[in-house]
Amino acid sequence: MLRLRLPSFRQLALRYPLSTNHSRTIRYLSMVSSKPQPEQNSKVLVFGAGNFGSCLASHLGDSQHEVYMWAREENIVKHFNEHHRNPVYLKDHAFPSTITAVGPQMPGKELISKVDVLLFAIPTQFLRSTLSILRPSLDLENLPLLIFVNKGIEVGTNALTLEIIADTCGSEIAKAATFISGPSFAKEIVQRQPTSVSVASFTESEASKAATLFHQPHFRCYTGLDPIGIELSGALKNVYAIASGMSDGLGFENNTRAMIITRGLSEMTCIGTAYGASPLTFLGLSGVGDLFLTCSSSNSRNYTVGYRLGQGEDLDVILKTLGSVAEGVSTTKGAKKIIEELGINAPIASAVYDVLFNGKNTRDAVKDLMELPPSRELELPPTAGGPARRLMNKLGLEAEGLGEVIHPQL
Amino acid sequence: MLRLRLPSFRQLALRYPLSTNHSRTIRYLSMVSSKPQPEQNSKVLVFGAGNFGSCLASHLGDSQHEVYMWAREENIVKHFNEHHRNPVYLKDHAFPSTITAVGPQMPGKELISKVDVLLFAIPTQFLRSTLSILRPSLDLENLPLLIFVNKGIEVGTNALTLEIIADTCGSEIAKAATFISGPSFAKEIVQRQPTSVSVASFTESEASKAATLFHQPHFRCYTGLDPIGIELSGALKNVYAIASGMSDGLGFENNTRAMIITRGLSEMTCIGTAYGASPLTFLGLSGVGDLFLTCSSSNSRNYTVGYRLGQGEDLDVILKTLGSVAEGVSTTKGAKKIIEELGINAPIASAVYDVLFNGKNTRDAVKDLMELPPSRELELPPTAGGPARRLMNKLGLEAEGLGEVIHPQL
Repeated sequence: MLRLRLPSFRQLALRYPLSTNHSRTIRYLSMVSSKPQPEQNSKVLVFGAGNFGSCLASHLGDSQHEVYMWAREENIVKHFNEHHRNPVYLKDHAFPSTITAVGPQMPGKELISKVDVLLFAIPTQFLRSTLSILRPSLDLENLPLLIFVNKGIEVGTNALTLEIIADTCGSEIAKAATFISGPSFAKEIVQRQPTSVSVASFTESEASKAATLFHQPHFRCYTGLDPIGIELSGALKNVYAIASGMSDGLGFENNTRAMIITRGLSEMTCIGTAYGASPLTFLGLSGVGDLFLTCSSSNSRNYTVGYRLGQGEDLDVILKTLGSVAEGVSTTKGAKKIIEELGINAPIASAVYDVLFNGKNTRDAVKDLMELPPSRELELPPTAGGPARRLMNKLGLEAEGLGEVIHPQL
Repeated sequence: MLRLRLPSFRQLALRYPLSTNHSRTIRYLSMVSSKPQPEQNSKVLVFGAGNFGSCLASHLGDSQHEVYMWAREENIVKHFNEHHRNPVYLKDHAFPSTITAVGPQMPGKELISKVDVLLFAIPTQFLRSTLSILRPSLDLENLPLLIFVNKGIEVGTNALTLEIIADTCGSEIAKAATFISGPSFAKEIVQRQPTSVSVASFTESEASKAATLFHQPHFRCYTGLDPIGIELSGALKNVYAIASGMSDGLGFENNTRAMIITRGLSEMTCIGTAYGASPLTFLGLSGVGDLFLTCSSSNSRNYTVGYRLGQGEDLDVILKTLGSVAEGVSTTKGAKKIIEELGINAPIASAVYDVLFNGKNTRDAVKDLMELPPSRELELPPTAGGPARRLMNKLGLEAEGLGEVIHPQL
């Protein structure tokens, strides 16, 4: 009937020997690192002039860094440099004069060799082509700090950003990549509203460089060593934002939303742990923090997609009229494949998939979820680490303890 | 500078051998259990006719149980039995006819021996006196199922409810107690809005009995074996609800609130783990779920106290005009003592304490928090389990692994 037996930490250690968030589990063999960063006034090239790219460019410019922001639209570049305004996003915001827009041509080796940091704020689906173009301009001996803020799973390949980087730029560059994720609405960041984010990389040194670049009294950076967990939590939370929006759109209230957020966090943690990330990453800013933000505000595009579905609109109509990309829709497709491959029980993500792609009615989806048999709170997966092991092998990283037989006395 | 090295599960297992949430770590010596429960139509006596007590009485009556609701005010008893309405709480709600109000005299042995369940929905500060009066009516051979839904730390003793039960009713009865906690606004429960809660006890059998009593398609119960963690998360979240309200009252927005919730969760988890609870309990409905609900709604009394403090009102005035008890204010005092005894770094809880009891300005409190040095995301404590061990000793429970020397090869 009611299943119990929550695992103790000791049992968790037996079942999940791999946690990608601990440096000592990884053997570093001749790691490439990015060039030393200046104490202040770093030169930063931001790819993407969308909502989040513009906002981070503004934050870095506001922090007295010298910022170049690449946009693929010529009119945005021109307008920005004339008016210090973005004509499409954050329209009311006067950007610092420390930012220069560049483009629409992709920046060449000259600019890239000169900058300290490359910050990628473009949708996951465009990352592979962008990195392929940039690769010849990247010099392993003079590598800029690489920071990625996109949150998604690549359609078709189900690849995380780490894998896209490895495929296009090689494993050495992928191992040096850093990731920033957390509860951070763009328009609040440019107003200097107190904000905190997670910054993760495989090495302390790279994560610290990115944290130092961004850290301000109104913008706190917490570092970690689980980039796979940061990527997965950042991507998966958008699926649950759609679920939360659906519930609100159907007219359900606070108790139901809190339930979806909590059960969604449990699912995310289960999927992430099965993948090979650390469950604890999902307790952090990129996990519960961003989940909470995205699930509880009409400022979130993914929440809005769900809300309008809950109100009875068709997905096609919603996507046509949304005016920007809702990464959660494509992420749901990728998440569904990962869930199936891992053999995970993730009823909320599966329900979102059925509503988005199988024409399921939102009210039926909620009803079915409520009628599931009782269960324990945090269901962790029977096996863990397969996808992360494959990815780390691809990066040339060995993770100790993987596949080890654990002493049965423990 | 930036501290890293998040622990892997294996390291966590080494450092925190005790998790009170796993039954196999506890040796059960001649445990008392409550009487067998009927398949349906249980007889339930609810102590307390406040907001939450009334709502749970209504839910149980709505589930075709036979409910007695004790109120200490004669006029409430009379009014309720005449009109099936509570004149003070949930005034718009028509209660099921399956509920009979009793009181103001405390129910005697006759009623208590007849009922299957005693449900305590009275403030923590009144629990000791109530249980002392009831103790002579409790028969170990014919013990009703005991359910507690209060959330707080006793002023003066810093005792959890488990300890209050042990002090007044003996350890045998305390070991059989069950606890319900989770994101559940009363007025949404009586409207059958989909709601989920955590149900915990030291044994599966008692937790399952309580879950079966409450479970409905619109009210899901998830069971667990960490009553100490459920109690601590339920109490501590009110401290962070005050912090969240302060931030909103000062005019900060979504990013800041998400940060406070996430960093508050990290603090709660650290305090709970040091106490001896399982960190995973804080990921559940009574942890992150109730934290999210309480921190993001003006329906929460504790949030409202913080909001009005943020707007510049004095605590005395707020408490005089609030119209009901905000348990977070007294819990902050107890939490501060526990934090100091355990030597935990809990800057948000300490800031709330300083605002409530040391006259600190709310704006200065937020500024000081933002200017703390960078740190890692989830700071777990250097030692764990002292208070839980003392409490479990008091209950006559032995926890394996406590104080054990762990094999250094691990």
